[in-house]
Amino acid sequence: MRNFVFNSPTRILFGKGQVENVGKETLAVAGKVLLLHSGGSVKQTGLYDRITARLRENGVGFTELSGVKPNPDIDIVRQGVSICRNEVLPMVLAVGGGSVLDTAKAISAGVFYEGDPWDFFDKKAQPASALPVGVVLTLSATGSEANGNTVISNSQTKEKRPIYSPFLYPCFSILDPELTFTVPPDQTAYGAADILSHVYEQYFHHEKETSIQDGFCETLMRSVIENAPIAIERPSDYSARSALMWASTLALNGLIGAGAVGDWASHMIEHELSAHYGIAHGAGLAVVFPSWMTQVYKANPARFRRFAEKVWDVDTRGMTDEKAALAGISAVRDFYRDRLKIGVTMKDYAIDGTKIETMADSAMKFRAIGSFVQLTRDDIVAIYKRAM
Amino acid sequence: MRNFVFNSPTRILFGKGQVENVGKETLAVAGKVLLLHSGGSVKQTGLYDRITARLRENGVGFTELSGVKPNPDIDIVRQGVSICRNEVLPMVLAVGGGSVLDTAKAISAGVFYEGDPWDFFDKKAQPASALPVGVVLTLSATGSEANGNTVISNSQTKEKRPIYSPFLYPCFSILDPELTFTVPPDQTAYGAADILSHVYEQYFHHEKETSIQDGFCETLMRSVIENAPIAIERPSDYSARSALMWASTLALNGLIGAGAVGDWASHMIEHELSAHYGIAHGAGLAVVFPSWMTQVYKANPARFRRFAEKVWDVDTRGMTDEKAALAGISAVRDFYRDRLKIGVTMKDYAIDGTKIETMADSAMKFRAIGSFVQLTRDDIVAIYKRAM
Repeated sequence: MRNFVFNSPTRILFGKGQVENVGKETLAVAGKVLLLHSGGSVKQTGLYDRITARLRENGVGFTELSGVKPNPDIDIVRQGVSICRNEVLPMVLAVGGGSVLDTAKAISAGVFYEGDPWDFFDKKAQPASALPVGVVLTLSATGSEANGNTVISNSQTKEKRPIYSPFLYPCFSILDPELTFTVPPDQTAYGAADILSHVYEQYFHHEKETSIQDGFCETLMRSVIENAPIAIERPSDYSARSALMWASTLALNGLIGAGAVGDWASHMIEHELSAHYGIAHGAGLAVVFPSWMTQVYKANPARFRRFAEKVWDVDTRGMTDEKAALAGISAVRDFYRDRLKIGVTMKDYAIDGTKIETMADSAMKFRAIGSFVQLTRDDIVAIYKRAM
Repeated sequence: MRNFVFNSPTRILFGKGQVENVGKETLAVAGKVLLLHSGGSVKQTGLYDRITARLRENGVGFTELSGVKPNPDIDIVRQGVSICRNEVLPMVLAVGGGSVLDTAKAISAGVFYEGDPWDFFDKKAQPASALPVGVVLTLSATGSEANGNTVISNSQTKEKRPIYSPFLYPCFSILDPELTFTVPPDQTAYGAADILSHVYEQYFHHEKETSIQDGFCETLMRSVIENAPIAIERPSDYSARSALMWASTLALNGLIGAGAVGDWASHMIEHELSAHYGIAHGAGLAVVFPSWMTQVYKANPARFRRFAEKVWDVDTRGMTDEKAALAGISAVRDFYRDRLKIGVTMKDYAIDGTKIETMADSAMKFRAIGSFVQLTRDDIVAIYKRAM
């Protein structure tokens, strides 16, 4: 196990009806907020009305900014920064999924930076502070509800970039699984693929003696594998929805990766697909990951054998490590296609191979990617090609 | 899964050499501290010199209070409160195991209470605030390094009582596994028994659909079962010591119990043994737990069967649930006796049955105990008697 710092300052309120606490929790931080949401499902489901009623009851003023889209753009971040400055708002309340949360975080940091907030994502500047961000989560996927990460796209430059800052942890996150009952099957599946990807990224490493982290990773993966198909089949299954929601948070709050070095190459490779073709992040991950695994498994076939056995219940008796590894990777692909019912190739999303070289260059723009295996440009091209 | 609030504000610095950061971390909170320690091993191992050197380098002033003993007494808490008040110290730095940490927490809350700090433990008052507490941990056991619990004894009234307050989380905890290399085999074993007990207390519940929590509990138990005998055999095995240290923290920081109701009856039953006979907490737990399990397993034999299979690798084929449950409980007792090499009966610690009735009354002093099974007075007496 390597040295690490673990810090998880976000206060989590989890469970049925927790959304009713949003007014009280917000008021404990600030008396007026930028209320950020997508403007779509939040209004249709009545959640918007529930939340604004609780804010009003508690005397919390709010200015709204809606229209956050999947793969959220830097443009709406800029708008949010302007509003917060003009109206001197001391807090952002984000109601939605990862896109809304990430936008809220970028706004919260942008307020304290005189330049263009894209500078953070282009590695030209780092957040020096941030407004507090409160969260009401409506989609189990990104883990943004309890970490310091945000990912923003730039539609002009066709880039999608992540940053981390210790200032970007939400102060509280309300995780009410009932709010995800209305998430449609495909989005539920993409969310599950996103959660699984976060675990893969922390599970495949060469660190020794990480029995606690390994067991935690395997537990989370098994829970998602068990519960995602149930949530797709029965959207109002509280038990399945709550397992997915808690797994989403624990997959990326720093816990399961503490003590080892994760490999985030697949995320970078996927971000290119989202940036260039606008596909859902989880969809892109389901396409990229089996291909990445096939590219790298030889670096540690025993690790992939364990993955096949402990996570996917593959009967590996009589198999070599390599064969067991490949059987595990097949299980991943089969699960996405047959149980989550989502595409597993670029072709499934009508993406051809014309931009592969451009995407490979962009994925490596800031540095070489990959730590389980550090990827060459050729490796990245091969991963895209195998995923076609 | 039930509703819950999860909050884990303690910043954890984990790993080799992290103790070197104590000066910097302390200075980020306060410029002078009450330095609290046992006065024994901390000085012998040179840790005292390392820490005070780092404090001096960072210009952090300190007043010392040493002499904290196992099952720490309210008397030293009173002394600490007086010192903090007289010297207007804004922080407590605790260097040691659970006893030192718990004492530090009680002092930190006592400073803001005009009455006697025993009132907290006698349920006559609640902490209204607390000084920040920093931690350098030297023993993997209680989990006090990342929670809001403290347990203090009163040698005059022969009581040992726990409290929880949200003000009592350490602001930072330095977990450097090398600092536990000098922990002798028996203390290592008692610490392991304490960690396991915390997991049992959160694993045995009747809540359904807690797959994540169950998997996390089983992971922690398996890791302790694997690593404690190694640490006893080879005290300087970094890998084993680090697994125990991280397990100690995760077993009682609120994570694995989130979403279910724990059963802390065994802790209360043990506290009486410590209060009346001064035995180590972990030693008492190793005595009490198998007896508690035998008393309650019929409330959910299937749960105990799972425990036998997933945690203790008992081959339960062909066994009824009840038989499998009993085989698991035997495995617990065998592990304590044969692998941890510690006593498993009151007799092993020269404790006779004369105070059983008194202890049963005291264990239930504030309320009925137990939630997996709510225990009657007769049940508690039976648990003590079976443990003789």
